[in-house]
Amino acid sequence: MFCCPACHARYAWGYLSHQCQACGGPLDFALERVAFPLQAIRARVPEFWRYAEALPVFEQPVTLGESLTPLAPCSIGTTQVLLKCEYSLPTGSYKDRGSALLISYLHALGVQEAVEDSSGNAGASLAAYAARAGLRLKVFCPASASPGKLLQIRLYGAELVPVEGPRPKATEALLEYVARTRAVYASHLWHPLFIEGVKTLAFEIAEQLGWSLPGAVLCPVGAGSILLGLHKGFGELCQVGVLPRLPRLVAVQARHVSPLYQAFVRGDQEVARALDPQPTLAEGIALPVPVRGRALLKAIRESGGAVVAVSEEEIAAGVKQFGQAGFCVEPTSAVVWAGVERLAQQGQLPARGPVVAVLSGHGLKAAQAMSQLVG
Amino acid sequence: MFCCPACHARYAWGYLSHQCQACGGPLDFALERVAFPLQAIRARVPEFWRYAEALPVFEQPVTLGESLTPLAPCSIGTTQVLLKCEYSLPTGSYKDRGSALLISYLHALGVQEAVEDSSGNAGASLAAYAARAGLRLKVFCPASASPGKLLQIRLYGAELVPVEGPRPKATEALLEYVARTRAVYASHLWHPLFIEGVKTLAFEIAEQLGWSLPGAVLCPVGAGSILLGLHKGFGELCQVGVLPRLPRLVAVQARHVSPLYQAFVRGDQEVARALDPQPTLAEGIALPVPVRGRALLKAIRESGGAVVAVSEEEIAAGVKQFGQAGFCVEPTSAVVWAGVERLAQQGQLPARGPVVAVLSGHGLKAAQAMSQLVG
Repeated sequence: MFCCPACHARYAWGYLSHQCQACGGPLDFALERVAFPLQAIRARVPEFWRYAEALPVFEQPVTLGESLTPLAPCSIGTTQVLLKCEYSLPTGSYKDRGSALLISYLHALGVQEAVEDSSGNAGASLAAYAARAGLRLKVFCPASASPGKLLQIRLYGAELVPVEGPRPKATEALLEYVARTRAVYASHLWHPLFIEGVKTLAFEIAEQLGWSLPGAVLCPVGAGSILLGLHKGFGELCQVGVLPRLPRLVAVQARHVSPLYQAFVRGDQEVARALDPQPTLAEGIALPVPVRGRALLKAIRESGGAVVAVSEEEIAAGVKQFGQAGFCVEPTSAVVWAGVERLAQQGQLPARGPVVAVLSGHGLKAAQAMSQLVG
Repeated sequence: MFCCPACHARYAWGYLSHQCQACGGPLDFALERVAFPLQAIRARVPEFWRYAEALPVFEQPVTLGESLTPLAPCSIGTTQVLLKCEYSLPTGSYKDRGSALLISYLHALGVQEAVEDSSGNAGASLAAYAARAGLRLKVFCPASASPGKLLQIRLYGAELVPVEGPRPKATEALLEYVARTRAVYASHLWHPLFIEGVKTLAFEIAEQLGWSLPGAVLCPVGAGSILLGLHKGFGELCQVGVLPRLPRLVAVQARHVSPLYQAFVRGDQEVARALDPQPTLAEGIALPVPVRGRALLKAIRESGGAVVAVSEEEIAAGVKQFGQAGFCVEPTSAVVWAGVERLAQQGQLPARGPVVAVLSGHGLKAAQAMSQLVG
């Protein structure tokens, strides 16, 4: 069931638009009930589909093999952190969780053709799952996106539409195309089934911790689908009593494009468009305004979390520090290194429970930028 | 226990040379006994360390989070194949299985510094695990290796020594360095603990098939560590009665560098150096002579297997066909697409049991070459 958090309109399974027909806002999705039969889950194949009672049911799920991603220990300064290595998913980013569900949904409805806009990773991920489902996909991307991501989109057989200018130009071009052609917009930014997939990240973390609560979870935030997925997933685990409460959810932004940080610091209820976005190494989160700003602020505050913003120097240092610890992550993911340091400096680390940081994407996706950083 | 298959010399745990002191040959490694407590294994963390009773014991294993890799279905022509997606390992290639064990061993012995030669993937993998263990590593690589692999080596903090000329030049430069400095040679080509790690690939495939036998397993072969690892792993499963026999092991080589293929076709017992190796897209298997040629031929024949050699056109087509099926693999891995087709054409597909093909490395490692192929 899809419902609009703004105007409370409801739409049944099978609804295809990316937004509320009544008010134009983004929709939420909720199953009637979720369950976590822990013993049964443990005996199932170690991939995210094992949380079957908390996911929509598809007769033919579209899958590329979504093994549980590692939770690997690493020292960041004097803080012991567990790194959730999402780059080990099929296309090298966490987006595969959302793509698997969204493409399974479109496939189940018989959709043959769809469009998407992306800074690169979501486009690559949707392209792979679309290839798997035999669905034609057109992806609007900034022409300046990392060559590795653009290569993946073309390799998987999607049609790549490079758009000159900053990230929002790609969205503008896509919306114009959608208005003209009535194409199905398979939007990782808008479609609630994308977040529905990403919530499995929370289930995995909880299971890997023996169904116990992390103290805090840090993640890069642009559109915020990781954070909203974590909020939904941990929320469902609380709802059925598996966990006692939410972990602190900490959003990390690049200071150069930090609308959520600014809104959080000001105590706002909505996220206003970043006034003066600057170019950033963290291309995956260079979004001047998130679609679900209100929901993000609410989720972070409800969890007792925080938002931190890190500099370009810190992002560059993070890439190298993760590398020297054995982890090859793209600059967008590397923001969490300085994020952990910032929490430690501010005495904001949780008193109890492990600190988890989400490594959202593979370093090889941004090999050129990485090469310059490594020198 | 290390032992020499040629002269039967034996060496105890703690032996550090990469070769037999008596005859200079490559060594084998064997545990005194192996066991597979299937119920217990199933309840353990889904990573290859779960096969603990069939692996050497380390007090402090060096790990980056080695989740079970997916076994994903794919149609190759009219053949249904299961793809073992090794690119989802921490550094993006199957080498992590061997590196985890080899570096754990060196770390346990207090080794502080080591050297390695590699076409790229093994160097990147060893560099990551060395970083994790705090071990200094120097990697000799062809200067022409894929930029992505060279980037990873530097990112992980290893010292990269680029060597002009074809792959064997890197080995020559390394051997000269080892002779001069007595450095520890952490060789993925020579060290039997590398193969000891790769054997877990067989354990995973067997477990993912419900501890049943695949009909055939295809893999790219240069030095042959995947094939020898499969042979050892499936062999141990037979030894304790979990499986009734070996699956057919099928080596796939690039026709341009195909010494094993030539030896197999001629019915030889040893693999002679390829007479006229040509440049190939499959850089990871462009080795004119394998260290363990005799063992490779024996393993393939014992399993009722085969060797096929594929053309550059077939490798290029394989990259694109895997891509359009949703899998982003480097050209070295893409050889198995034509390998499956060849078996099908020759009526050599097994009558019973699934066909498994090993996808050894991530496509993003070879992004430049891939870009040219995708066009």
